[in-house]
Amino acid sequence: MIKLGIHPNFQKRYPPVLAIGGHDPSGGAGIIADAQTLLALGTWPLTLISCLTAQNTQFIKQVTYQPVGAFRQQLEALLVDFQPAAIKLGVLGDLAIQETVASLLNYYANIPVILDPVLSSTSGTSFSNAELIAHLKEKIIPLCAVITPNLPELNALVPGNGSIEFKAMQLINSGCRAVLVTGTHNQTHTVKNLLFTASSEPLVNRWQRLEGEFHGSGCTLASALAALLGRGEDLATASVKAQDYAWRSLEKALKLTEGQLLPLRLQDTPHA
Amino acid sequence: MIKLGIHPNFQKRYPPVLAIGGHDPSGGAGIIADAQTLLALGTWPLTLISCLTAQNTQFIKQVTYQPVGAFRQQLEALLVDFQPAAIKLGVLGDLAIQETVASLLNYYANIPVILDPVLSSTSGTSFSNAELIAHLKEKIIPLCAVITPNLPELNALVPGNGSIEFKAMQLINSGCRAVLVTGTHNQTHTVKNLLFTASSEPLVNRWQRLEGEFHGSGCTLASALAALLGRGEDLATASVKAQDYAWRSLEKALKLTEGQLLPLRLQDTPHA
Repeated sequence: MIKLGIHPNFQKRYPPVLAIGGHDPSGGAGIIADAQTLLALGTWPLTLISCLTAQNTQFIKQVTYQPVGAFRQQLEALLVDFQPAAIKLGVLGDLAIQETVASLLNYYANIPVILDPVLSSTSGTSFSNAELIAHLKEKIIPLCAVITPNLPELNALVPGNGSIEFKAMQLINSGCRAVLVTGTHNQTHTVKNLLFTASSEPLVNRWQRLEGEFHGSGCTLASALAALLGRGEDLATASVKAQDYAWRSLEKALKLTEGQLLPLRLQDTPHA
Repeated sequence: MIKLGIHPNFQKRYPPVLAIGGHDPSGGAGIIADAQTLLALGTWPLTLISCLTAQNTQFIKQVTYQPVGAFRQQLEALLVDFQPAAIKLGVLGDLAIQETVASLLNYYANIPVILDPVLSSTSGTSFSNAELIAHLKEKIIPLCAVITPNLPELNALVPGNGSIEFKAMQLINSGCRAVLVTGTHNQTHTVKNLLFTASSEPLVNRWQRLEGEFHGSGCTLASALAALLGRGEDLATASVKAQDYAWRSLEKALKLTEGQLLPLRLQDTPHA
């Protein structure tokens, strides 16, 4: 049972958006990446941590999930105070945390939920298993406005033969309203992203593939979608704007280490 | 023993700055506030979490410190990959974590360390005790470029009688290079901040007091100082620019709840 506050109508500028995911100390991915994106796109970042990670732009060494009791206390403290306009989910990775999130989503059926189904890191660390995937498909994905799998994630969520469209429609038939399949894991010259919904032809967007490997591109795209949907944009517009924002963040990415590049999510000149 | 990486000269844009402190899910304070400020001022946020808190803009309910073993793993993963240009310290709050941080600072004697000595929250939750304060004064403050106490914090660090200047000079005599004492806790019409150093008269800056209570004003000021010093500004310039940035963030603060206002650290128009 999650207690919710009574929220008068506060100002509409920077509506709060809740991001739940892992903490990456490098700032490239996870909730720090989400916070950067949410703020840059005119929403206020609320963040809850599923797990703490020892990672950098080259590897992940250790993942420590929060005890669900502490996670719930943090969630309740947030929700008695803030009324989120959207919820973005990244790494959940623990069954008790996933169950808490599923019950949260049942309370917030009227706001958009965006899931980036991160099942493993680029470097190969797993954040999932068969039980977690089954729970995700049964209890969380059906409540989402959009999920943003890349091809490996789509294949993990819907194993076996079948086209991308067939697999995306399987997820939509389970209740989620849209699936944005990203094509970054191919090696083609252009990246082709496909937005599937129940009611219309897939929307196709093509982007020039950028050189190099990036740390946190998926987080950027999904948080951007959360920000734009939280601000009331319609899905088709939000999808294109979020892809454009993510592409521009990668195009200006920073080379600060010998590892992956870091998306620059704040694109204006610094203030001072 | 902390392992450090060998770092070639990467690009000078957005030098990485490491912020160590608590995680506040509301985004008003702690490492999310630091990350917002560091990025807005042209540096890249690296963040390490001392403690997770169940808090909002009205209260703090629970504080959970990280086991020091996990904290060290995260620190080492960061430092084999990144070369920080400055280090900002907020809530440490645990002796084992403070000891790890003290040994870290000994490795990084050549970069500026900025300490916001947060000893308790506005709402009264303590992040300290006599043992932690003694360790802070002996092992951490002497290695700092600047510390940014408000008056209650200055009095906790240097108890007993004596003027502000006397107390600030006690800290400077212990080895820290500057003390910026903030006057926000007075009730005067203007806020008077004083920057003390060993070698010159205190620099005085006055700011119009803003209406309302703010969540994370101290974090904003100290992170802004860290960003500006990390980018190579001299202390006097960085101090004024950081105060100006913090004041403007508060002036545009958001009212999203019935509690404290949230500083808006990103002051341009959002991108999309």
